[in-house]
Amino acid sequence: MESGSFFPESLRMLTTHDHASVVSMNLFVALLCACIIIGHLLEENRWMNESITALAIGLCTGVVILLTSGGKSSRLLVFSEELFFIYLLPPIIFNAGFQVKKKQFFRNFITIMLFGAVGTLISFGIISLGAIHFFQKMNVGTLKLGDYLAIGAIFSATDSVCTLQVLNQDETPLLYSLVFGEGVVNDATSVVLFNAIQNFDLSHINSGVALELIGNFLYLFVASTLLGVVAGLLSAYIIKKLYFGRHSTDREVALMILMAYLSYMLAELFYLSAILTVFFCGIVMSHYTWHNVTESSRVTTKHAFATLSFVAEIFIFLYVGMDALDIEKWKIVSGSPGTSIGVSSIILGLVLVGRAAFVFPLSFLSNLTKNSPYEKVDLKQQITIWWAGLMRGAVSVALAYNQFTRLGHTHLQGNAVMITSTITVVLFSTVVFGLMTKPIVRIFLPSSKQINTLSSEPSTPKSLTTPLLGNGQEDTEANASFNNVTRPTSLRMLLSIPSHTVHHYWRKFDDGFMRPVFGGRGFVPFVPGSPTE
Amino acid sequence: MESGSFFPESLRMLTTHDHASVVSMNLFVALLCACIIIGHLLEENRWMNESITALAIGLCTGVVILLTSGGKSSRLLVFSEELFFIYLLPPIIFNAGFQVKKKQFFRNFITIMLFGAVGTLISFGIISLGAIHFFQKMNVGTLKLGDYLAIGAIFSATDSVCTLQVLNQDETPLLYSLVFGEGVVNDATSVVLFNAIQNFDLSHINSGVALELIGNFLYLFVASTLLGVVAGLLSAYIIKKLYFGRHSTDREVALMILMAYLSYMLAELFYLSAILTVFFCGIVMSHYTWHNVTESSRVTTKHAFATLSFVAEIFIFLYVGMDALDIEKWKIVSGSPGTSIGVSSIILGLVLVGRAAFVFPLSFLSNLTKNSPYEKVDLKQQITIWWAGLMRGAVSVALAYNQFTRLGHTHLQGNAVMITSTITVVLFSTVVFGLMTKPIVRIFLPSSKQINTLSSEPSTPKSLTTPLLGNGQEDTEANASFNNVTRPTSLRMLLSIPSHTVHHYWRKFDDGFMRPVFGGRGFVPFVPGSPTE
Repeated sequence: MESGSFFPESLRMLTTHDHASVVSMNLFVALLCACIIIGHLLEENRWMNESITALAIGLCTGVVILLTSGGKSSRLLVFSEELFFIYLLPPIIFNAGFQVKKKQFFRNFITIMLFGAVGTLISFGIISLGAIHFFQKMNVGTLKLGDYLAIGAIFSATDSVCTLQVLNQDETPLLYSLVFGEGVVNDATSVVLFNAIQNFDLSHINSGVALELIGNFLYLFVASTLLGVVAGLLSAYIIKKLYFGRHSTDREVALMILMAYLSYMLAELFYLSAILTVFFCGIVMSHYTWHNVTESSRVTTKHAFATLSFVAEIFIFLYVGMDALDIEKWKIVSGSPGTSIGVSSIILGLVLVGRAAFVFPLSFLSNLTKNSPYEKVDLKQQITIWWAGLMRGAVSVALAYNQFTRLGHTHLQGNAVMITSTITVVLFSTVVFGLMTKPIVRIFLPSSKQINTLSSEPSTPKSLTTPLLGNGQEDTEANASFNNVTRPTSLRMLLSIPSHTVHHYWRKFDDGFMRPVFGGRGFVPFVPGSPTE
Repeated sequence: MESGSFFPESLRMLTTHDHASVVSMNLFVALLCACIIIGHLLEENRWMNESITALAIGLCTGVVILLTSGGKSSRLLVFSEELFFIYLLPPIIFNAGFQVKKKQFFRNFITIMLFGAVGTLISFGIISLGAIHFFQKMNVGTLKLGDYLAIGAIFSATDSVCTLQVLNQDETPLLYSLVFGEGVVNDATSVVLFNAIQNFDLSHINSGVALELIGNFLYLFVASTLLGVVAGLLSAYIIKKLYFGRHSTDREVALMILMAYLSYMLAELFYLSAILTVFFCGIVMSHYTWHNVTESSRVTTKHAFATLSFVAEIFIFLYVGMDALDIEKWKIVSGSPGTSIGVSSIILGLVLVGRAAFVFPLSFLSNLTKNSPYEKVDLKQQITIWWAGLMRGAVSVALAYNQFTRLGHTHLQGNAVMITSTITVVLFSTVVFGLMTKPIVRIFLPSSKQINTLSSEPSTPKSLTTPLLGNGQEDTEANASFNNVTRPTSLRMLLSIPSHTVHHYWRKFDDGFMRPVFGGRGFVPFVPGSPTE
């Protein structure tokens, strides 16, 4: 076991010879503060959101550094995928799981999986095939089959972080639930796909390799989810058993944070999808563990996780904004600006087509299972879903760096083109598509105001928003709606009955066995408030 | 500006070739969880505390790694002073400032400064002179004058972290306030001293250099404190002005954390004492900023800061425990075990003498300023203060590594002896002195139970505990006690009158100018609860 691999010895701060890194850290922390303050000031603005603010501040800082350094460097820091995957992504995804409205998520589970897994695969296929078709004719440089497939995986990863800042959980609950759920599953699918492409020998593909790939994919999904659930349950059990008639808020909060992080790192250790693991760990923790701790711990964890996630998001956008102007990469591609612009445009086109190719057909499929027009995803909503998932973000950048650079540097022309194109696509999609999303949501979903009025009634939000939910059934034992449905089509039966039955048995199992063992609402002294309320 | 200096490229986690570091991180996070759980189980134990538990677990892990690696390595990680000073120490010291009982701290301010600054200098002088006297006769290896002075500074740094876990703020408020305040000032004094020794040319000392050293010292104290106060006030002002009729808990919490960290890094940038800066930033934030935020933000910050500090403390002890068995250093000194044991014993003796040499005389001096026997620090309390500050901890280890190693490795025999001796002294003092502190507090301060009963009355804790406070005067405008005092001695007059007057004018200034501008209790809608209550 190599010592010293956990903490870098290059982080020498106390000694004077690394004064430059202290300057960088100061500037960076100050910029984070500026992003938060400006973001707060611009909150009412109809175009801007926090992501675009951070990106813009990052770009401006890049320009200033570029000018002060005489065109030598634009970066305070090199984009590091390790920093991203080990420190910034876990709090964002964990918080997503912790704050998600669990009932809606699981009600729309089948639609979400259709969009997130099948949709991402469709998008991946179209982008990969398009890249092979177009790029081979252009003077892009040497790219192998693995590179083309990697491009497909890289640009299938939507930016759930940015999307969620635009949609509102209370105004458009169904859309939020679908887009959010899709985003998480999509992130996991892209990363799993990307790893599969990197690890498999693609020189001779046959049905055996393909089958192995699919098997590997399913194994990753199931094992990652299970690991997250087990870690969450373990934390609930430990905190419940440690009670001993005395609580310690600090210990509870520390244990929850550490065990969530441990689940993420364990998934990395076993080469699983850490994103899926920590997401399900968050769901289980909010369902069981969160009810076993003190009221102070509840308030603290709820806001501390949200704050961590918030800071990590801003950090990422600031980071991508600053990295975008890195001069080294642009120099390599400056000889052929046409190629770079062409590649970026083609990728943007493929992203638009690839997403349209699964949103509309899969929405049609999903609508077949619905009874009333209220429950269907109409065309306007479909366009919104299509649009809301067009943004590409930090996951794409991180994967692109992983595939096309060595330690943040690149010298091959083909690789440099891909890196600059990735940055162009990310910037363009985040800024242009992002700026237009708020107005589009306002144009296509004018009814959101009305829904908002309805669901702002705090006492019974569930029953009032139910018509908008996926299966439209109450999760109580009252199966009345089941008998009243108008002659379900066979496909509708196929999809809605198992979903309902599973939920019914789950509730019985949860109340009869899980909650008595692991705690949860109703099995600890009641205190009002919950992370999802 | 060198890019890439902020985040190390060596932290490659995703790729398989650094699987070892993922294993290390997993093991380390799991050990942290274990420390928290075992610490909770052992809380009622009369000998153990969390520091010793973490140290013991670290040592055991070291032994296991040593055995499994076949005696090659005992470390999961190399002790990194940068990690310690940049990531672990700031939350601990900030939280100390944030949670400190401000009134008691400022009432005992003069005594605390006597102990923390003058006392540390006395201790530094005795240990340095003792080291020069004893080590030059022994076969220690080549040590220069700068090394001897560094040894004095290294072993003058008491371990406030460990001490505070033993004393209780409610049971022994005066002692806690004195020992805690001394610990913070002592940390700052040692680090400032250490830096001064490293930066100054010690080959020809004259009165000019000495004067410059003292001037530098005073400048550091004043400038660091001012920077912390300004940062705290700025955060209060920003959050007060950003209110705009709408709050955002996540933004408030994020801003408080980031601005506190920014103050620490700014102090590093200007070569100030970051410990002092972040401590005063914490005090100002709890006095102003904390009252300007939402109730959720108050609960969250209070517990989030405490949790961060708690985890950082455990992290440090686990880290020191694991590092202690590092085989490389022990191999170098294994040829002369007698020397290493001798050096450690001499240092331990010097630490005992050095602390006694200032606690008893300075307590006598402090007692001269007190009126009634209640306010005086009696012999039993003096012994407790002496004993409670004997432990040496992570600050000593970090400074020793800075002075005697290059990037965590050492090859000179003299340096290796100093490193192993530092570890021996830290382990011995933490475990042996630490284990005996709880019983000693119980033997020497049996009255603590009674005090506890008095101060557990939540409505008026201030007036009941006042007899135990430094100056024993109410901070209200009622100056009656001032006229009733029995003929103060001239020294008592000298010390107590300015202190009282300063406090009186401060209150007027605070209510008349500071609070209306920066917010604070009474100037924002009242919500019960405060971080110091």
